[in-house]
Amino acid sequence: MKLADIFFQMKSDLQYLEKEMEKAISTKEHLLFKSSSHLLKAGGKRIRPIFVLLSGKFGVYDREQLKYIAVALELIHMASLVHDDVIDDSEKRRGKQTVKSLWDNKIAMYTGDYLFAEALLMVTTLEIPRVHQILSKAMMEMTVGEINQIRDFNNWDQNLRHYLRRIKRKTALLIAVSCQLGAIVSGAPEPYVRALFHYGYNVGMAFQVTDDILDFVGDEKKLGKPAGSDLRQGNITLPALYCYQSPEMGSRIRGMMENVVLSNLTEGVIIPDNRMADAIQLIRNSEGIDYAQSLADRYILRAKACLEQLPDNAARKSLLEVANFIGKRQY
Amino acid sequence: MKLADIFFQMKSDLQYLEKEMEKAISTKEHLLFKSSSHLLKAGGKRIRPIFVLLSGKFGVYDREQLKYIAVALELIHMASLVHDDVIDDSEKRRGKQTVKSLWDNKIAMYTGDYLFAEALLMVTTLEIPRVHQILSKAMMEMTVGEINQIRDFNNWDQNLRHYLRRIKRKTALLIAVSCQLGAIVSGAPEPYVRALFHYGYNVGMAFQVTDDILDFVGDEKKLGKPAGSDLRQGNITLPALYCYQSPEMGSRIRGMMENVVLSNLTEGVIIPDNRMADAIQLIRNSEGIDYAQSLADRYILRAKACLEQLPDNAARKSLLEVANFIGKRQY
Repeated sequence: MKLADIFFQMKSDLQYLEKEMEKAISTKEHLLFKSSSHLLKAGGKRIRPIFVLLSGKFGVYDREQLKYIAVALELIHMASLVHDDVIDDSEKRRGKQTVKSLWDNKIAMYTGDYLFAEALLMVTTLEIPRVHQILSKAMMEMTVGEINQIRDFNNWDQNLRHYLRRIKRKTALLIAVSCQLGAIVSGAPEPYVRALFHYGYNVGMAFQVTDDILDFVGDEKKLGKPAGSDLRQGNITLPALYCYQSPEMGSRIRGMMENVVLSNLTEGVIIPDNRMADAIQLIRNSEGIDYAQSLADRYILRAKACLEQLPDNAARKSLLEVANFIGKRQY
Repeated sequence: MKLADIFFQMKSDLQYLEKEMEKAISTKEHLLFKSSSHLLKAGGKRIRPIFVLLSGKFGVYDREQLKYIAVALELIHMASLVHDDVIDDSEKRRGKQTVKSLWDNKIAMYTGDYLFAEALLMVTTLEIPRVHQILSKAMMEMTVGEINQIRDFNNWDQNLRHYLRRIKRKTALLIAVSCQLGAIVSGAPEPYVRALFHYGYNVGMAFQVTDDILDFVGDEKKLGKPAGSDLRQGNITLPALYCYQSPEMGSRIRGMMENVVLSNLTEGVIIPDNRMADAIQLIRNSEGIDYAQSLADRYILRAKACLEQLPDNAARKSLLEVANFIGKRQY
C-alpha cells in the first residue's frame, strides 16, 4: 500500500474534516474570517487529522466524535504556525504569503489567539476530562518550546539535548497527542493508547529532523522558501549543530558565524550574505546531513516497533506506510 | 462596609490565591518565568479573583476548588493584557514597564500564549464540562473583541453599538464569567448563577466605561500613563465618540482628526501633537464625559438590581460595595 492509497481510502473523511474546519473558523468578524480562511486555504499536509483518524480505528471508530479532536489539533497547529511567522518574520510559508505579510503582526497574533480559542471550544464538546488535560498540557509545552527556540536563537553553545527537547515540544508532542487522543476518544484499550502515543512521538521527532534536513538540502520551489532559512533566522538545527561541534568543521563554522556567537539572545544579527551562503553550502555538503538522516531513520525504526504492540489491521498498515513516507519525504 | 473592609476580610484567601498564581507560573524555562513573574508582580486590582470568591459564597464555599477558576481567570486576564501591549505598542502599564518594552514583542506574544495554556491546564483539574465550555467561549469572544478593536482603530464611522459590543467582549464578559463560574463551582442554584452572571456583566460594562473616562480625566500619576492614551493610539472610546457625533462639537473634532478619518485600518496615523492635545482637551471638558458617566451609573444600577435576586448575606453586601466602588473609582 502506498501513501496515495491511504489518502484515497480516507478521502471522504478528510473532505468531511475540511468542511468542519471551514465551519469552525466561520465568524461574522470579517477580518478574522479572512485571515483564518487564508491560513486554511494555504493548505498543509493535514497529518495531525490523519493520525487522529487512523488511531481512532483501534477502538470504536466514530468520525463525528473524532472530528472534535482532529479539527482542534489542526487549528492548534495552524495557530502555532501563524504565531511562528511573527517570530520568524516570515513573508512566505509553503510558497504562499503569510498572514503577517498580508496584514500585520498584530492581526497574525490575534488570528492565532482566535484559532487557539476555537480549538478549545471545539474540544469542550467532548466531555472527557482527560482529553482536556492532555491537550492543555501539550499547548503549554508547545509554548515553552517556542520560547526555548527564541532563547536558543544564535546560541551555538547549545548541545544535542537542547535541540531534541526543543523539537519534541515544538513538533513531536502534538503528533503524539494526535495519536493518543484519537485512540482515547474511540475508547481504545490503554496499551494501544500508550503504543500510539509513542509511535506518534517517534514519527514526530523524525518529521522535524527531516524538516530541518530539507531546510538545507530541499528543493526551494517545493519548500516554498530559500534554502538555509532556519540558519538565516538564527534557528540552529541539527545539521548546523553537528558541523559546529565536529573537530574538522567546527573552527570554519565558528569563523563564519563569529558575530553571531557574540550576539545578544533575541536581537537579530547581521551576518554578511556571502558568509551566510558559504556556511549554508558547507553544512549542506557535510556529515551533519548524514548524521541527521541517520537519527531520523532511528526514530522511524522506533516508531515502527511501537506499531508491533497493536493488532495487525488495516489502520496499522497505514500507520506503517505513513512512517515510511515521513522517513523518506522530499518536501 | 467599605471596600477596604472587604479586602481585609478576604485577605487570607487573596494571599493564598497570590501564592497559587506564583506556583502556576513557575517553570524551569528561565526567560518565561522572568517575563511571567514581572507581569504578576506588576500587580493589578485582582478583581476577577475577588468576584470568583464572592460568588463562591452562594453555594458551598471551597477555596481549594475556587482557586482553579480564580487563578485561571487572572492568568487569562494577564495574558490578554500582555497581548494588548503588543497591539498598543505600550511601553508602560500601571506605571511599570511592559514585557514588550523589557524584552520584545515576540517574548510578549509567547508569554501570553504560555499564560493562556497554563490557565487552561489549571481549569482542567475541575472535571465540570460546562466550566470548560463557558471559559473557552469567553476566550474566543475576547479575541474577537480584540480584533474588533483593531478594525475600529481610527474609524470614526462606528456607532455606540460598536463600542458597547467591543467593551462587552473585551472586559465585561470575563467579569461576568468570573461571577458565573464562582457560582457554578460552588454548586450554587441556577437562578443565582444567572443573577451573578448578569451582575458581573453590568459591573464589567461600568468598569470599562469608567476606564475609558479615566483615560481622559484621570490623574496621570495614578493611571501610570499619559492622558488621552487611547485616542493617541487610535482607540476611539465613548467620550470621544459622543463628542464626534454631537452636532455642536462634531465638526471641530472632525477637523482635528482629519487625517485619521482618511487613514488605513490598522496602520498608525500621525496626527500633529498639538492637534491631538487640543482634541483630548476638548473631549476632557465635554458632555461626552458626563454622558459616559451617566451610562456607567446606569450599568451600576442594573448590577445592583441583579443582586436583589440573591439571598441577603455578607457576600451580597460585599458585591454591592464593589459595584459602588467601581462606579466611583478614580484609578
